[in-house]
Amino acid sequence: MKKNDKIRVAIYGASGYAGYELYRILKHHPGAEIKYLTAESSAGKKLSDIFPTADGLPIIRNEEVKLGDVDAAFLSLPHGAAKGVVEEITRSSRKIRIIDLSADYRFDDAAEYEKWYGRKHTSPDFLDEFVYGLTEINRGAIRKARFVANPGCYPTATILGVYPLLKSRLIDLSEPIIIDAKSGVTGAGRKPEVRLLFAEVNENVSPYNIGYVHRHTGEIEQELNKVAGSKLKIIFSPHLVPITRGMLNTIYVKLNRDKSTEELTEIFSRTYKEELFVKTLTDDAIATFQHTMNTNLSVISVKKVENSPYAIVVSSIDNLGKGAAGQAVQNFNVMFGIDETAGLL
Amino acid sequence: MKKNDKIRVAIYGASGYAGYELYRILKHHPGAEIKYLTAESSAGKKLSDIFPTADGLPIIRNEEVKLGDVDAAFLSLPHGAAKGVVEEITRSSRKIRIIDLSADYRFDDAAEYEKWYGRKHTSPDFLDEFVYGLTEINRGAIRKARFVANPGCYPTATILGVYPLLKSRLIDLSEPIIIDAKSGVTGAGRKPEVRLLFAEVNENVSPYNIGYVHRHTGEIEQELNKVAGSKLKIIFSPHLVPITRGMLNTIYVKLNRDKSTEELTEIFSRTYKEELFVKTLTDDAIATFQHTMNTNLSVISVKKVENSPYAIVVSSIDNLGKGAAGQAVQNFNVMFGIDETAGLL
Amino acid sequence: MKKNDKIRVAIYGASGYAGYELYRILKHHPGAEIKYLTAESSAGKKLSDIFPTADGLPIIRNEEVKLGDVDAAFLSLPHGAAKGVVEEITRSSRKIRIIDLSADYRFDDAAEYEKWYGRKHTSPDFLDEFVYGLTEINRGAIRKARFVANPGCYPTATILGVYPLLKSRLIDLSEPIIIDAKSGVTGAGRKPEVRLLFAEVNENVSPYNIGYVHRHTGEIEQELNKVAGSKLKIIFSPHLVPITRGMLNTIYVKLNRDKSTEELTEIFSRTYKEELFVKTLTDDAIATFQHTMNTNLSVISVKKVENSPYAIVVSSIDNLGKGAAGQAVQNFNVMFGIDETAGLL
Amino acid sequence: MKKNDKIRVAIYGASGYAGYELYRILKHHPGAEIKYLTAESSAGKKLSDIFPTADGLPIIRNEEVKLGDVDAAFLSLPHGAAKGVVEEITRSSRKIRIIDLSADYRFDDAAEYEKWYGRKHTSPDFLDEFVYGLTEINRGAIRKARFVANPGCYPTATILGVYPLLKSRLIDLSEPIIIDAKSGVTGAGRKPEVRLLFAEVNENVSPYNIGYVHRHTGEIEQELNKVAGSKLKIIFSPHLVPITRGMLNTIYVKLNRDKSTEELTEIFSRTYKEELFVKTLTDDAIATFQHTMNTNLSVISVKKVENSPYAIVVSSIDNLGKGAAGQAVQNFNVMFGIDETAGLL
Repeated sequence: MKKNDKIRVAIYGASGYAGYELYRILKHHPGAEIKYLTAESSAGKKLSDIFPTADGLPIIRNEEVKLGDVDAAFLSLPHGAAKGVVEEITRSSRKIRIIDLSADYRFDDAAEYEKWYGRKHTSPDFLDEFVYGLTEINRGAIRKARFVANPGCYPTATILGVYPLLKSRLIDLSEPIIIDAKSGVTGAGRKPEVRLLFAEVNENVSPYNIGYVHRHTGEIEQELNKVAGSKLKIIFSPHLVPITRGMLNTIYVKLNRDKSTEELTEIFSRTYKEELFVKTLTDDAIATFQHTMNTNLSVISVKKVENSPYAIVVSSIDNLGKGAAGQAVQNFNVMFGIDETAGLL
Repeated sequence: MKKNDKIRVAIYGASGYAGYELYRILKHHPGAEIKYLTAESSAGKKLSDIFPTADGLPIIRNEEVKLGDVDAAFLSLPHGAAKGVVEEITRSSRKIRIIDLSADYRFDDAAEYEKWYGRKHTSPDFLDEFVYGLTEINRGAIRKARFVANPGCYPTATILGVYPLLKSRLIDLSEPIIIDAKSGVTGAGRKPEVRLLFAEVNENVSPYNIGYVHRHTGEIEQELNKVAGSKLKIIFSPHLVPITRGMLNTIYVKLNRDKSTEELTEIFSRTYKEELFVKTLTDDAIATFQHTMNTNLSVISVKKVENSPYAIVVSSIDNLGKGAAGQAVQNFNVMFGIDETAGLL
Repeated sequence: MKKNDKIRVAIYGASGYAGYELYRILKHHPGAEIKYLTAESSAGKKLSDIFPTADGLPIIRNEEVKLGDVDAAFLSLPHGAAKGVVEEITRSSRKIRIIDLSADYRFDDAAEYEKWYGRKHTSPDFLDEFVYGLTEINRGAIRKARFVANPGCYPTATILGVYPLLKSRLIDLSEPIIIDAKSGVTGAGRKPEVRLLFAEVNENVSPYNIGYVHRHTGEIEQELNKVAGSKLKIIFSPHLVPITRGMLNTIYVKLNRDKSTEELTEIFSRTYKEELFVKTLTDDAIATFQHTMNTNLSVISVKKVENSPYAIVVSSIDNLGKGAAGQAVQNFNVMFGIDETAGLL
Repeated sequence: MKKNDKIRVAIYGASGYAGYELYRILKHHPGAEIKYLTAESSAGKKLSDIFPTADGLPIIRNEEVKLGDVDAAFLSLPHGAAKGVVEEITRSSRKIRIIDLSADYRFDDAAEYEKWYGRKHTSPDFLDEFVYGLTEINRGAIRKARFVANPGCYPTATILGVYPLLKSRLIDLSEPIIIDAKSGVTGAGRKPEVRLLFAEVNENVSPYNIGYVHRHTGEIEQELNKVAGSKLKIIFSPHLVPITRGMLNTIYVKLNRDKSTEELTEIFSRTYKEELFVKTLTDDAIATFQHTMNTNLSVISVKKVENSPYAIVVSSIDNLGKGAAGQAVQNFNVMFGIDETAGLL
């Protein structure tokens, strides 16, 4: 691919952890060229002023992006902030593709967004334009999409961990699917809040928004309901752990048929056998944070509980990799018809 | 209390993390005097050779303890190693009390021990002599006990977190009680194993022995079955987190009656209202590692899941405090009829 | 000591890490009673709203303290904020003693304060009223003092580490004393700043204000110059390490006479032989963070460099213990003529 | 480059942290193909049995390597263990190149090795065959070398940090160069030792072998003496910090001429202006661990101390990157005449 054949990208919101991870991946992507980095609060600085290992690329304001120079836009903006950029891109004559990492366009229904996010949706008309970008499940639609809503980190780990069992009709839906999730602290963003200080997070594990409260619960529910074809019961309990990045969801499901660990593992292996970014563990290995650290991988183990109809799925992703920037680039690759692993190995 | 009125104690196994914590607590205990520290592998050294902040007390071999100088023995020995000391103390004419921190005498039935620990019990005759030392639940028996089997860390956090609901007959026992536990690394002991190295534990969360496998599952089952008066279903999934000490169990139970978070909280508050070392959180606060770090406290929060018959109990202890050495000293205080909080505030 | 004989204290600035540590120590102090906690920004809350392990004591505004109920005030306020409280206490008829943990009154000379802190001193008249509270060195003056300026954490570790050699006239003052310091992150306070976030501090070591720039350099210089009787050269390089609390200063000095490690160690041991909170390590042990963690101790090792006129002193304190709240309580004990270790063992 | 044009490599000692890092880099190296992985103690296992994120490549014994299939050997073996492999390769008719990561062949003189390593050198005859592989300084010799001794991590960071000043004859050699080093724990290897356990390393900073004792002191001295053309005085004080990987050396040097921070920075920038893996920081930025984490970079800042003839160089590398596996691959690239950055960006 010649230099001038490269897909020109703009990263909106490059001063956050996910925005920076997009930069890190795209910098070495053989088919992409970073044209613009934006960050409203850091405009005028260089990226290296914010992240010591970055290059000195200039950071500009959203409105300074020249859309004529851009083929694809990654939006890693605060909730509600994507609207302006999406509108501008829609109005422009060019066919720029968007991968939005916020929650703004993940819901099919504005009412669901409003219920979980506690505020009016600012641009419900766009909801129909966006495809939910869980690559392994929606690849066909993503391939044809102009706009993709990149999934949340918890939903990615959960959906990939439950999908094979749900699709195989193996889950007893009369009991809830219980997701006990552990996340590294970059999942909470790069915000100057006391609760995110080193001295508050270190030597601590903090559950938060447990039960049926966290915003990602609605997203998980929407997508799993589609797979199940009926309304599931979800209990979702996230925990903050003293780790920079990574995520592990321990998922408890009641089975409606007796299956051994080996049979369950085989179902996962078969479901994901063509997938380059999903790995099913065998031989009693259990997924950990380290299985996916600094990668775009999803690593999953499944285990039947002895003398019990329950199974435990452990699903690991890097919250900044497959849980954000990695999957965004994977979707980008699919949208532009290039090698799905480009930039991600 | 005059110096010569102090209860003279021996700490067997002082070179491990729990043994050292016993030393730290008993050093400042107003009613106890440390007479001996033992550690088979470190005999001949001083305690400060092993733990930099310790005093230079000599470490001797178990057999060097002069039982005539001892009123109470804390045993923090490897599994199976307590037997010799217990036999010797039993044979001696003196009425020395024992608090054993190993699992050797926690089970009522040697067969259960053998099932969970995968080996023959070496001294089943002693099982009847030991009282299970979960202070808040067995205080009456502990007061009269000569020998106490100090509970495991996971069982302590779990049992205290489930007891009020079970006693109130609020749990639907047809579904399992699911315990998703997170533990600091000192729970695994001070063993030179690659899996416990800093570079392996740091930036990682590792589930291990999940489902119905971990040895503490049997202990939890035994004690909760007694409270319930019937056989419970337990799923127990421990996770190692990159923290030195502390423990948090997130417990999912199905209720058989509709109760609000406030009503559930009130049940916990009432159950533990006389307890100085159990604290029920109110006002939507959720227990974290930091609530109990470096203390003998058990801190518990309970939350009803919206639109669901399930409740989530979060139960925090310090694995070396209430989960080991702290509770051992609490039991010691009860056994000797002194202030239960002595040395522990 | 009867309850009503207790010294009644107010802690100003209880919502910071040092303020909370004062609370933790004084809560169990046998001779003190906490009457008031203040924090301008958190007035109206309870302490447990801020620190999960605290009791529910109310937090009030500085001006709500009734000075008639108070015998001693600990000021753990931002730089420049002590002035108002000091003035009010000075005006009141009662002989309330003050231990100020800020830098406001540590300098003998307002010009030095202004040079290092880059702003006008707001109350230079008070400078003469305050005694520099490095207990081991100024105990006589502290005993008679009404107002004590509690030293900074870096100066405490440095001065205690250099004092024996300087007093023994063993240092070649033609070369600088080089202090390479490593500090836990609570030393930077409980401020919502991006640079203090977990994800910024974790897996990182950051030098800052190195050379002859950091504010504590002036404080170190002032006090060491007094001991030396001449003007020293200081190079001071602090580093932030991913640890909640603790501090270690590695100090390089050129000796003017040949002394062995044993001889140097003997000088330290002799200098501090009556001190209960300073411990000199022997037998090639080197001080670490863990030697002083959660204590009021200063632990020091000294080592002669082979074939070189240089020696290396390693000086460890807990930045919140001997480096702030611990030493403040030690000074309080000295000022009120009670056991110097009260509350600190 | 066609597949069958790739340089075929064997990694000896793949079960350690540096060996695994070699695997991680070489797996994606466009010009290399991993043929063999060895590890005496893990032979028969797959690499993924040891490192969860690795592929399932088989691990064999050293002697099972078929040298006819190999063009280059990376030796990441314990000290003293390289000898056998070097002998076998030397005896074989093929011109296999070796990059040895141990200290065995770093010294010019067996006596120096024996002094610092405290044991007889087992194969002093090979010393002359090996070129010291600090790429930026010895590139010419490395290009022609068959055997390269890859430098230690501390020496790499130190030498790169001192070289520009020493070469410019700016250092007053009458005073020692003082190196206060901080290293992540992987530098100590993957050995099951109590001192390397998470609970020992976490929340601690430990100086060790400070002064003129650590083995790397001799290596630093040898190489800097060559640059200076005279015998330098070195003081070297390493500290273990609670971080998995990374290294930062804070280096204090006395200058013999007055130079500003800007002038000193300019000297570094000029010295390394052609170097792709050395970055000089400007504008008062100071190097941190994060500047080089997970890279092959060396990042350096220099600062003149005000009113003092001293300067402070801060030199950061990743101990597993430029400090071990990264530099080994950089040397491999130079030896084989391919792009020096191949596999390393």
